[in-house]
Amino acid sequence: MSPVLSPGALEEQLRAIGRERYHDLHPFHGLLHGGHLSKDQVRAWALNRYLYQAAIPIKDAAIVARMDDPALRRIWRQRIIDHDGNAPGEGGIERWLRLTDGLGLPRDYVVSRRGALPATRFAVEAYVHFVRERSLLEAIASSLTELFSPNIISQRVTGMLANYDFISRQTLSYFDDRLTQAPRDADFALDYVKRHATTADTQAAVAAALRFKCDVLWAQLDALHFAYVAPGLIPPGAWRSGENGA
Amino acid sequence: MSPVLSPGALEEQLRAIGRERYHDLHPFHGLLHGGHLSKDQVRAWALNRYLYQAAIPIKDAAIVARMDDPALRRIWRQRIIDHDGNAPGEGGIERWLRLTDGLGLPRDYVVSRRGALPATRFAVEAYVHFVRERSLLEAIASSLTELFSPNIISQRVTGMLANYDFISRQTLSYFDDRLTQAPRDADFALDYVKRHATTADTQAAVAAALRFKCDVLWAQLDALHFAYVAPGLIPPGAWRSGENGA
Repeated sequence: MSPVLSPGALEEQLRAIGRERYHDLHPFHGLLHGGHLSKDQVRAWALNRYLYQAAIPIKDAAIVARMDDPALRRIWRQRIIDHDGNAPGEGGIERWLRLTDGLGLPRDYVVSRRGALPATRFAVEAYVHFVRERSLLEAIASSLTELFSPNIISQRVTGMLANYDFISRQTLSYFDDRLTQAPRDADFALDYVKRHATTADTQAAVAAALRFKCDVLWAQLDALHFAYVAPGLIPPGAWRSGENGA
Repeated sequence: MSPVLSPGALEEQLRAIGRERYHDLHPFHGLLHGGHLSKDQVRAWALNRYLYQAAIPIKDAAIVARMDDPALRRIWRQRIIDHDGNAPGEGGIERWLRLTDGLGLPRDYVVSRRGALPATRFAVEAYVHFVRERSLLEAIASSLTELFSPNIISQRVTGMLANYDFISRQTLSYFDDRLTQAPRDADFALDYVKRHATTADTQAAVAAALRFKCDVLWAQLDALHFAYVAPGLIPPGAWRSGENGA
């Protein structure tokens, strides 16, 4: 059994997981940000990542549903509001759809999820099931990939604007709000985890939860890379260029 | 809305899904059966597929748990018995471990699932969740990939015995029993689906369930191919040749 870590040492362990496993290390991101993808490859990314975006408020509602403390629920529900907005046309999911709109993908096709890669669906569903079935502490810890996202978001917005003439600041508006939301959310979750994971067992569980979440993100890029970059084997039924109006 | 199909036309539709989507069409199978993989690549296949084998009786128990009819439960429980056996050292999972033994993978490492690809885990878990959460009819329909398995099993056993000196009839003993079990199980499930899917809605649902299951199998080979054949990008934490005693 490992020794109990201080809160600071636990934080360092969690940050080390990000340095080893966060999906900014995946070659697909280098291709995406560096301007090395075709418009169709960027479409495939946006189409598939829609599933992840659309699952975020469902995942967060499942977490809120497991919280006994109204104060905690009030804080966590902000994540649902951020993604669903206060009215039609608002919120993170809607801003993601501005990106798929800008790429010329029909909205009803994107929202139907019909063309998504099965591996994307399985990874996203694994995340939702994880937060329903594991402890609340593990569910909260699985959100901690947001600790690592501001850096990748900056690289993405800068790189994509510079390298793709079909990308504009307006189509990337999703990421503007995430630059402030993600650190606020991650700071809260990290503080929660540091205060509640105070045994060797719970510290091992939160580290495993963060590794699991890194796997969820990595597997999505693996599936994209394999189907649409190399070797380019698109599974039966998944989106192909020229299909479904895009 | 589609018209209601006759039982025979429904069967034909389901068989057509197999011809379009069953994983015998995946290039990894051609490489596996044709002797084009290294011993390490065959190891990666056996290591990852262990997760699928180990989940089968859990999946079937979840289905039995949803059956109100004792007669139906008595039939379906045979699947659990086939995979778990009547004593230690028996059953389909044990026979799969004879294959991983024969390939030189330490049993405790295989059973720990530590080296499995995350995409394998997510696909297998998606299958277990599907049979828990969808209708009983859809859960039963998702087993119908067994309609297509005798052919691939024959190809696999013949091809692997002919092409790999590290494979013996004894290490492939898992597949001997499956050649009789799979048709028996598939016949029962097909008959059940044809008798119970008698509306356009339920017929569409069983077709979607079978497509889903084909996706589960295909995604597992995609992940193997991508990590261990081409481009050979092994996700963080997944098994690498020479690690863990194998």
